[in-house]
Amino acid sequence: MKTLMLISNGFEEIEAITVIDILRRCDIEVDVASITGSREITGAHDIKMVTDTLIEDLNAEGYDGLLLPGGLPNAHNLRDDERVINLVKEYDKNGKVLAAICAAPCILERAGVLKNKNVTAYPNCIDESAVNYKKVKAVRDGNVVTGCGVGGAIDFALLIAKSLGKEEEAEKVRKGILYDWPLE
Amino acid sequence: MKTLMLISNGFEEIEAITVIDILRRCDIEVDVASITGSREITGAHDIKMVTDTLIEDLNAEGYDGLLLPGGLPNAHNLRDDERVINLVKEYDKNGKVLAAICAAPCILERAGVLKNKNVTAYPNCIDESAVNYKKVKAVRDGNVVTGCGVGGAIDFALLIAKSLGKEEEAEKVRKGILYDWPLE
Repeated sequence: MKTLMLISNGFEEIEAITVIDILRRCDIEVDVASITGSREITGAHDIKMVTDTLIEDLNAEGYDGLLLPGGLPNAHNLRDDERVINLVKEYDKNGKVLAAICAAPCILERAGVLKNKNVTAYPNCIDESAVNYKKVKAVRDGNVVTGCGVGGAIDFALLIAKSLGKEEEAEKVRKGILYDWPLE
Repeated sequence: MKTLMLISNGFEEIEAITVIDILRRCDIEVDVASITGSREITGAHDIKMVTDTLIEDLNAEGYDGLLLPGGLPNAHNLRDDERVINLVKEYDKNGKVLAAICAAPCILERAGVLKNKNVTAYPNCIDESAVNYKKVKAVRDGNVVTGCGVGGAIDFALLIAKSLGKEEEAEKVRKGILYDWPLE
């Protein structure tokens, strides 16, 4: 099982890193590809990450799912990049998992794959009247998985893993990270 | 309000990034300093981060708190570094906030600042019989704040912010990241 994360400057660090970390814990490969032309990118809170590769250097066919983190301007950079939109459309046609969190569902909206679906997103980031908008941490509808934002990042990541057939691994990881321990 | 995170290879990515991100959202400065001699470090799940500075290049007196992320071998690297242990002792003497998550409370244990305190940590990372060990996401006892691991990273970060006097900001951030939205 192999997934591709597309990312650029202004990405939300918790949303990106939580998905990469949790999916790798679930034995799912994640290749992180920058769309900026540089492997070193800077997040919305000034954290610098070095990506695995560049979008122009990868074979996009070899993946089972696409991961889109939020954060601004990252989500808008991705939405306005034709290579990204074409990839979303192609993956959707092939029934591959499309996962977007926070502001990033606007990328799926631009590609036309959200209509009438059960979707969450950070408030006011998509046309909520064009979907069945749900105020929940994470929701799946067919091949589309969406998350509300930082506060739902772990649930979003676990739901992606389950959508890729890693139910048992996701459950094991949820327990292993002590997600069920009480607040105090 | 200004804090220092010490970090090395094998750091747990969600634990480190969540604390940096959330504290910066709460208007707390965070300087991330590598102890490896290189600003580029690699996490336990192979995510590469570029730190702000190196431990040898900073003035450790100018901070209000110390942040210690988990992950192995990161937590043991920090525990076995005399510069780190001396800093913990000095900060403790001055009543500065000492925050450690997951395996990292072993660093505070080595410095001798945990005894008989209310403490959480990932199971079997410290001598749990020498403290008042609590199976909770995050707990504060005086200047010592501890977190259980990845599943408690957001609560740990918010508790650090509150311990640094940023109660209102922490509450605003908790709401802003939609932490209270239901799971489904």
